[in-house]
Amino acid sequence: MSAYENLQRLGITLPTPTPPVAKFVPWVLTGNLLFVSGHIARSRNGQLGRDVSVAEGQEAARGVAIDLLGTLHVATGDLDRIQRIVKLLVLVNSAPDFTEPHLVANGASELFIDVLGERGKHARSACGAAQLPFGTCVEIELIAEV
Amino acid sequence: MSAYENLQRLGITLPTPTPPVAKFVPWVLTGNLLFVSGHIARSRNGQLGRDVSVAEGQEAARGVAIDLLGTLHVATGDLDRIQRIVKLLVLVNSAPDFTEPHLVANGASELFIDVLGERGKHARSACGAAQLPFGTCVEIELIAEV
Amino acid sequence: MSAYENLQRLGITLPTPTPPVAKFVPWVLTGNLLFVSGHIARSRNGQLGRDVSVAEGQEAARGVAIDLLGTLHVATGDLDRIQRIVKLLVLVNSAPDFTEPHLVANGASELFIDVLGERGKHARSACGAAQLPFGTCVEIELIAEV
Repeated sequence: MSAYENLQRLGITLPTPTPPVAKFVPWVLTGNLLFVSGHIARSRNGQLGRDVSVAEGQEAARGVAIDLLGTLHVATGDLDRIQRIVKLLVLVNSAPDFTEPHLVANGASELFIDVLGERGKHARSACGAAQLPFGTCVEIELIAEV
Repeated sequence: MSAYENLQRLGITLPTPTPPVAKFVPWVLTGNLLFVSGHIARSRNGQLGRDVSVAEGQEAARGVAIDLLGTLHVATGDLDRIQRIVKLLVLVNSAPDFTEPHLVANGASELFIDVLGERGKHARSACGAAQLPFGTCVEIELIAEV
Repeated sequence: MSAYENLQRLGITLPTPTPPVAKFVPWVLTGNLLFVSGHIARSRNGQLGRDVSVAEGQEAARGVAIDLLGTLHVATGDLDRIQRIVKLLVLVNSAPDFTEPHLVANGASELFIDVLGERGKHARSACGAAQLPFGTCVEIELIAEV
């Protein structure tokens, strides 16, 4: 199935990417590697382990993955040109005692596999950040092969 | 304009890179991608949101960008061989309530564009670190295409 | 000397990699770049600057490097196919006043050079994370050229 058929099946409408707020760009293509800027959860602020639950963090991470797909759609012109999601760096806004950033990250990882299948299986790091831009609860940067 | 003309116009003298303090190297070139080690602000220690202001953080990030250009000059032999600044990861030493690492990162992003023009426009992630080496206020790693 | 001769000389037995606990993969190969997922210290939890000493953190980082070599062995089929360790990102679980993540990272950096010689010399960033998966004290992600 194509990525777009999977998105339809999941009831997901891709957002129109918001331009970055500063002097940088949403992605850079070099060779066949696409480096995508960190995307932040627009829907939920706060810290895991303090005022955001794991389930809420997972939902936010899923939302960031959808936004990343929206950017990948614009960057590639066709999500089915993506050969592979190569790597995610998942930064989770964490109180000093929150030890489950990997569970939050799963919200994004699962979405990529649901939409892209085998091509969505990626390497990944997840860690706790002291804070994130605008106080968002999760930020994800991505490398894809086109 | 060449990068060097822009540096002259901005009154910036590139520093001679300091060798890393440990068993790693300042950069590795693989194919046409140059992976540059995290460079730290040498001029200012402390945490944003506690003892470093946004303006001071931006100035420190600008200084790190200048140091990175110094390293890129040595790595490439000629800054005008750089095809593109691909990506920055900007780590900002942050108190738990400092939510503007992106503003600090702008100090570096703007310098790259001022010196390299379109070639300086990069993908970027900015986040809050719990601490940084030597207590510096900002650390930046970089990928460039040569 | 081959990587395996060096491992034998150092008395190091490579572990069998543990499959990731979630929906991601241990590595992705794209072109000749191998992106390896963040590996965490299995032997020691806690934060530097609070309940883990620098020496303990270095030992943990060395252990993560050994685990990464175990993954690289499986990924490449032969460690001597690795042309270069390109870059490490070393995330150190840090209390807000721990300013020596670079010293912890040396535990990993030195091991790569001991085993791979010149090919083990890498670019690197080290920073303090607010927390890490499962409360581990150190997490390292790696890019290698094969």
